[in-house]
Amino acid sequence: MAGTDTTKTSATAPGPRIVLVRPQLGENIGAAARAMLNNALEDLALVAPREGWPSEAAVKMASGADTVLEKARVFDDVETAVADLSRVYATTARPRDMTQRVLTPRAAVAELRAHVAAGEAVGVLFGPERSGLTNDDLVQAEAVIRVPLNPAYASLNLAQAVLLVAYEWFQAGDATPEAVLETHDSRPAEKAELEGFFARLIAGLEAGGFFRSPGLKPVMIRNLRALFQRATPTEQEVRTLHGVVSSLTGSWCGTAERRRAAQDDTVDS
Amino acid sequence: MAGTDTTKTSATAPGPRIVLVRPQLGENIGAAARAMLNNALEDLALVAPREGWPSEAAVKMASGADTVLEKARVFDDVETAVADLSRVYATTARPRDMTQRVLTPRAAVAELRAHVAAGEAVGVLFGPERSGLTNDDLVQAEAVIRVPLNPAYASLNLAQAVLLVAYEWFQAGDATPEAVLETHDSRPAEKAELEGFFARLIAGLEAGGFFRSPGLKPVMIRNLRALFQRATPTEQEVRTLHGVVSSLTGSWCGTAERRRAAQDDTVDS
Repeated sequence: MAGTDTTKTSATAPGPRIVLVRPQLGENIGAAARAMLNNALEDLALVAPREGWPSEAAVKMASGADTVLEKARVFDDVETAVADLSRVYATTARPRDMTQRVLTPRAAVAELRAHVAAGEAVGVLFGPERSGLTNDDLVQAEAVIRVPLNPAYASLNLAQAVLLVAYEWFQAGDATPEAVLETHDSRPAEKAELEGFFARLIAGLEAGGFFRSPGLKPVMIRNLRALFQRATPTEQEVRTLHGVVSSLTGSWCGTAERRRAAQDDTVDS
Repeated sequence: MAGTDTTKTSATAPGPRIVLVRPQLGENIGAAARAMLNNALEDLALVAPREGWPSEAAVKMASGADTVLEKARVFDDVETAVADLSRVYATTARPRDMTQRVLTPRAAVAELRAHVAAGEAVGVLFGPERSGLTNDDLVQAEAVIRVPLNPAYASLNLAQAVLLVAYEWFQAGDATPEAVLETHDSRPAEKAELEGFFARLIAGLEAGGFFRSPGLKPVMIRNLRALFQRATPTEQEVRTLHGVVSSLTGSWCGTAERRRAAQDDTVDS
């Protein structure tokens, strides 16, 4: 399973209960369980699943998220499924003829995280595949989550709706830096190391007759420096670049003839 | 299709090309097309799909996103699929033994949107279901997107990976307010309307003997006011609340006997 580190155990910090209301297909319950575990959510409640419970189709789709299915609880109605929760939000794609507070998933999980931080038990309702939650389901919740989507094609699969809410939940609590340069065994080159490479490169280019117009030389050097600075090479890469220059100037494999030949070539800029 | 407004046409603003590299299952291509159209992306490229193309399984899963499949283009290799793009980002779940810039989806789409705004053509690579992109695929891209997920269960279905990147793309360009009170035919009550209700409520409670402890009366009134203020009722709801108070005090259906009976009741606070 690409990307999964089986030596790590799931995070078990409290998160929202995912309540699937009258789900029609076991496959979708399984896929929802997978989306939950991807985002470290494990409290699954099923209200009157149409095909009964347990479901072989659900297990088949959950591929590894069986733990979520095994712990899932089945309820007869929404009221019972949320009885012990202080905060319930409901997902819906369709506007309703009701006065309701409507949130994006991102804004909703910010509120849910604040509630959880205050020690409150929270949950999110998801309706049946075909029709979504009824208005009577919706009034079990204090606010509505609606995912902003292409208005011409806003229909989400049940498991995808669960994924987006669970994903936003996880992101809101995750400290992964937005952007990072992964250098593994190496490290970003120090500027002096980069200077060493520039010196060798420029010497090689001078020997090769690259700077045919002395007036343009400073600009050409600046532009080359900017390119390599922008690439933010590692120390290992700077060493490789030294080798590249040596190889191209012939000093790497190094006979005097090849070096002279390289210097006779005219490099077009 | 719940939530889809068929009178609206798809947004066709330029967005990233979604490049599925050696996808194994037609179903996943169809589900990816659906996730794309949900987020107003329509440029799909397929590199050497294992089951060939076109794919009946893909059409079956796309449920309405056929337009994306019909316009999809098939390429022999990644190089050709991205030849006309200026910026290519690659998704991967696994860390690689390569020096690479790694971004969250949110940070990546911010960059991609900046590139698109500058008139550049951009794309995102997604690898095969089982193994993900090879290192040779990855070096066709200038940066890597990795979705922060539960480290104990980070494996995403191909279509779900496409959904998360496409979703972030759409959210970054969407102006939906984070939270809004939908009031439909009504409007939020003006404070004077709310005052009118408070006056009637307090009068009814006084008549009913609710304020048995005169010292606590101001606090009890403040707490009730805070509750109704927090609910931010609409003008229509304030009218309903007037009716509720009238009904409870008996003046709504209104015989003198019922009014007297109501006043004899002691309401516990």
